[in-house]
Amino acid sequence: EEMLGKPKFRYGMAERENQIGVATGLAYTTVGGDTLQIEVALSEGKGKLILTGKLGDVMKESAQTALSYVRSHAGELGIDPAFIDETDIHIHVPEGAVPKDGPSAGITIATALVSALTKKPVRREVGMTGEITLRGRVLPIGGLKEKTLSAHRAGLTTLIIPADNERDIDDIPDSVREDLTFHLVHSAAEVLAHALKEA
Amino acid sequence: EEMLGKPKFRYGMAERENQIGVATGLAYTTVGGDTLQIEVALSEGKGKLILTGKLGDVMKESAQTALSYVRSHAGELGIDPAFIDETDIHIHVPEGAVPKDGPSAGITIATALVSALTKKPVRREVGMTGEITLRGRVLPIGGLKEKTLSAHRAGLTTLIIPADNERDIDDIPDSVREDLTFHLVHSAAEVLAHALKEA
Amino acid sequence: EEMLGKPKFRYGMAERENQIGVATGLAYTTVGGDTLQIEVALSEGKGKLILTGKLGDVMKESAQTALSYVRSHAGELGIDPAFIDETDIHIHVPEGAVPKDGPSAGITIATALVSALTKKPVRREVGMTGEITLRGRVLPIGGLKEKTLSAHRAGLTTLIIPADNERDIDDIPDSVREDLTFHLVHSAAEVLAHALKEA
Amino acid sequence: EEMLGKPKFRYGMAERENQIGVATGLAYTTVGGDTLQIEVALSEGKGKLILTGKLGDVMKESAQTALSYVRSHAGELGIDPAFIDETDIHIHVPEGAVPKDGPSAGITIATALVSALTKKPVRREVGMTGEITLRGRVLPIGGLKEKTLSAHRAGLTTLIIPADNERDIDDIPDSVREDLTFHLVHSAAEVLAHALKEA
Amino acid sequence: EEMLGKPKFRYGMAERENQIGVATGLAYTTVGGDTLQIEVALSEGKGKLILTGKLGDVMKESAQTALSYVRSHAGELGIDPAFIDETDIHIHVPEGAVPKDGPSAGITIATALVSALTKKPVRREVGMTGEITLRGRVLPIGGLKEKTLSAHRAGLTTLIIPADNERDIDDIPDSVREDLTFHLVHSAAEVLAHALKEA
Amino acid sequence: EEMLGKPKFRYGMAERENQIGVATGLAYTTVGGDTLQIEVALSEGKGKLILTGKLGDVMKESAQTALSYVRSHAGELGIDPAFIDETDIHIHVPEGAVPKDGPSAGITIATALVSALTKKPVRREVGMTGEITLRGRVLPIGGLKEKTLSAHRAGLTTLIIPADNERDIDDIPDSVREDLTFHLVHSAAEVLAHALKEA
Ligand SMILES: [Ca+2]
Ligand SMILES: [Ca+2]
Ligand SMILES: [Ca+2]
Ligand SMILES: [Ca+2]
Ligand SMILES: [Ca+2]
Ligand SMILES: [Ca+2]
Ligand SMILES: [Ca+2]
Ligand SMILES: [Ca+2]
Ligand SMILES: [Ca+2]
Ligand SMILES: [Ca+2]
Ligand SMILES: [Ca+2]
Ligand SMILES: [Ca+2]
Repeated sequence: EEMLGKPKFRYGMAERENQIGVATGLAYTTVGGDTLQIEVALSEGKGKLILTGKLGDVMKESAQTALSYVRSHAGELGIDPAFIDETDIHIHVPEGAVPKDGPSAGITIATALVSALTKKPVRREVGMTGEITLRGRVLPIGGLKEKTLSAHRAGLTTLIIPADNERDIDDIPDSVREDLTFHLVHSAAEVLAHALKEA
Repeated sequence: EEMLGKPKFRYGMAERENQIGVATGLAYTTVGGDTLQIEVALSEGKGKLILTGKLGDVMKESAQTALSYVRSHAGELGIDPAFIDETDIHIHVPEGAVPKDGPSAGITIATALVSALTKKPVRREVGMTGEITLRGRVLPIGGLKEKTLSAHRAGLTTLIIPADNERDIDDIPDSVREDLTFHLVHSAAEVLAHALKEA
Repeated sequence: EEMLGKPKFRYGMAERENQIGVATGLAYTTVGGDTLQIEVALSEGKGKLILTGKLGDVMKESAQTALSYVRSHAGELGIDPAFIDETDIHIHVPEGAVPKDGPSAGITIATALVSALTKKPVRREVGMTGEITLRGRVLPIGGLKEKTLSAHRAGLTTLIIPADNERDIDDIPDSVREDLTFHLVHSAAEVLAHALKEA
Repeated sequence: EEMLGKPKFRYGMAERENQIGVATGLAYTTVGGDTLQIEVALSEGKGKLILTGKLGDVMKESAQTALSYVRSHAGELGIDPAFIDETDIHIHVPEGAVPKDGPSAGITIATALVSALTKKPVRREVGMTGEITLRGRVLPIGGLKEKTLSAHRAGLTTLIIPADNERDIDDIPDSVREDLTFHLVHSAAEVLAHALKEA
Repeated sequence: EEMLGKPKFRYGMAERENQIGVATGLAYTTVGGDTLQIEVALSEGKGKLILTGKLGDVMKESAQTALSYVRSHAGELGIDPAFIDETDIHIHVPEGAVPKDGPSAGITIATALVSALTKKPVRREVGMTGEITLRGRVLPIGGLKEKTLSAHRAGLTTLIIPADNERDIDDIPDSVREDLTFHLVHSAAEVLAHALKEA
Repeated sequence: EEMLGKPKFRYGMAERENQIGVATGLAYTTVGGDTLQIEVALSEGKGKLILTGKLGDVMKESAQTALSYVRSHAGELGIDPAFIDETDIHIHVPEGAVPKDGPSAGITIATALVSALTKKPVRREVGMTGEITLRGRVLPIGGLKEKTLSAHRAGLTTLIIPADNERDIDDIPDSVREDLTFHLVHSAAEVLAHALKEA
């Protein structure tokens, strides 16, 4: 890694390996779509939730909702609820100086959380977008076309999107659409089935 | 749930099954009525109350009031008060980016809470609106006509409304009114009797 | 309580029965007087005080002052101070969307608190107004005429008011005054003696 | 205390009896001087300090400083420091709707606190004004003339004032000054010696 | 201390005796220099830090930094770290109504803290100014000339200042400079060596 | 260190010795680059994080992220996670009156933290800049040229920078570049390998 070496990592590209505790979301900004990483770190603690990355109030509530979904469904997700009580959970969204808001990272946050808590890796080729509700419903989001284009540019090949966004798929250029597999989902359980590998 | 599949769920329609911890309220906005879901999730915890869904101060106080009603009437509702102390209660109102306020979801919140705590399902065909007081009085609300029309559009067939709103029923078109059963209530106990099924 | 039934309760009228944990205060607004209910609910807890009903800072401090009066005089009021430490106290003032402020509900809050903690009912025909101090002094209030007229309209027959407001009584029309009994009080102890029934 | 009775108490006048936990301070407003009561109530608790009476930040800090003076000098004041840890202390300044600020009630707050904690009564004829520091120094205040006139009107006969305000005494009209005894003090210990009676 | 007595203390002058838990700092205002006392009081507690005296955010952070310096160097300072955990520390800067800010009281706060915790008196003839860092570095400050003049007026004879302010000493008039001894310091350890007497 | 002595330390220059718990970062301001010290102090405590130095919200989140990186990687970093729970961690960035913000001190904060927790010294000739993510990725930063010039002026000889900033190196004048060794890094683990000496 000396001065003349070449960078091996470029931020905004698909991960090179399946990772634990990291999931790729799709964001929608005034200047187009973007991909973002949701990172989750666990430490011995007292059940505290730490949220960083210049997140707005709606996105913070979305993270809280994703966490409560996981906590209240811990049994069926194969997570020991007592473990969560003794763990501090930090959710961070780089880049730290860029403001982020909105509910559409809900299912991505849930995926990163479940990956961190179960140690199941997230498939590296998967990106996702969708609001999560407390019981795990997946609600539609905006900007699907722009999000899809940025996911394609980043090298992702599989997108998990809300079933209620099906009608928006035909707005995506054919050349992009044929490179991608879409999973239309109604529930967080379906999201996790598509996104996680067995440990 | 592949790309060519059809969406099976459309947000804003009546539930397909009786659910536990979810009740349907009626909201009133500047552009008409709307239905909303109140979701309650319980997790092992320390009696913390978490409120999300971009709720205004009055709606947060209303949720707090509904919870105190439930806590102080735990015995007659068949709930173990010690259980509440060891449970974190999260109340979420999708959609997360839409601001919501006002006291009229009070009885809906109480219903979702009691359903979650008793595991009694909420009847799927029921919608409701009404301010709750700490001792369980049900106070009148505004916008009954618009709320009723949106409930009708969503496929609900039974509405629980405050007795003090009786005079507003004749503002509803006959064609809608005859499709619906109204329960005019004075107390939260009556609301629960109409809304919950035995477990 | 079906659609054709008649409402049995109309908010803003005197209670039909003596109640525990509920007292009737008199408010003064830019458009005249009004009555309001102070509701107190107790739950197993850790001595937390919850205040709802869109209360302003002065009214919140007044509630805190009323509670400290009760706590520091627990012995003479027949209340076990250890019980208060293990109880969460919620004070709510319907209607939840109407802002309320000022110190004049102080004695009403104290009365509702003592009623809830001792299980002594509040006499249903009694309304009251007066600032409370920490040692139980009752200080004068404004708007006595308007408050009295609204109490009269609501069907109350006995009013507890600060002794320092005596001079304001002759501003009340004779026709109203002769329907009412006034108790002029200097101390919270006198208020409680007039307002509460033995359990 | 019926409607025809005469008020026995008028707020703003000297107390009728020596009281425990109540001391009389002198305030200075844009329209002249005023007297005010500092009330202290103790309850079983966990060492919490509650401050009410629409107090500004400087006055709240002054109360905190007075309390720390008392806590750190508990031994010499004859107070068990362990007792303070198990006591919630509420300091209230009626009238609740009137904003109050400034550091000059410092010694009055300290006096009311020590009276409440030792059960020694405060002499009813005494009024006082002066900033307190953490080690019990008494610092000069403004508005001595106006404060003295209001104390005189209220029927107080003894005033405790900062030694550094000595030069301001000759601004007070002779007719008032000769009715009053002044104690010029440098320390909180001197204040307490003049203000408290043995229990 | 009767009305005809003479004041024995005038605020803003050097202390008459070496004191424990009090150190003299030098402030710089738009109208010149001033001296200020930093007072520290210790009470049995839980390690809480209380800051009063209308302090701005930078000065509060400076106090927090001084305290962490003391806590993390407790061993070499002869302080039992367990003692700090069981002690509430209140730092107050009279006069309570005067706003104060900036980092230059850092070493004065550290000195008052160490004096209070070790019971070593602060030399009464010493004034000081300098920003402290977390590891005890002393950083330069502004307004040395004005601060020195006010220290001289107050009767102080020894000043502890940052070594990096050496160049500013020749701006001080000779007549003042020759009355004073300056200690130019790089570290908080040097400050304490100059300011504290052995107990 | 008497008045005639010469200052031995000038703030803004490279450290004279390898230090524990202090790392040198590079800042970018509207008037050019600057170096800054990140200081970490540990005290017996309860796992509290204290942040001072007039830090903006993004920089505070960056410090929180660096700490969570350290906590969640404690094992591989040779740190006992139980130790962190019993330690209060204070991170301070002198000079206390200068506002600071942004994510680019992330790796510097992580380095100072790991140094303090492992007692491994930081190499005194090293400066660094780079955003850290929760899993230890190093993200690119702005102002590399200005930061490098200020590092050079301060006497630093080795700079750790994000690999994704490689393209910015050729903007630095040759005369400066040839005095410096650059380490281009992708991960916090690489940062620590370059910055820390074995204890
Ligand atoms: Ca980006
Ligand atoms: Ca379409
Ligand atoms: Ca909707
Ligand atoms: Ca009608
Ligand atoms: Ca009303
Ligand atoms: Ca009159
Ligand atoms: Ca007055
Ligand atoms: Ca004079
Ligand atoms: Ca001064
Ligand atoms: Ca010079
Ligand atoms: Ca600098
Ligand atoms: Ca370039």
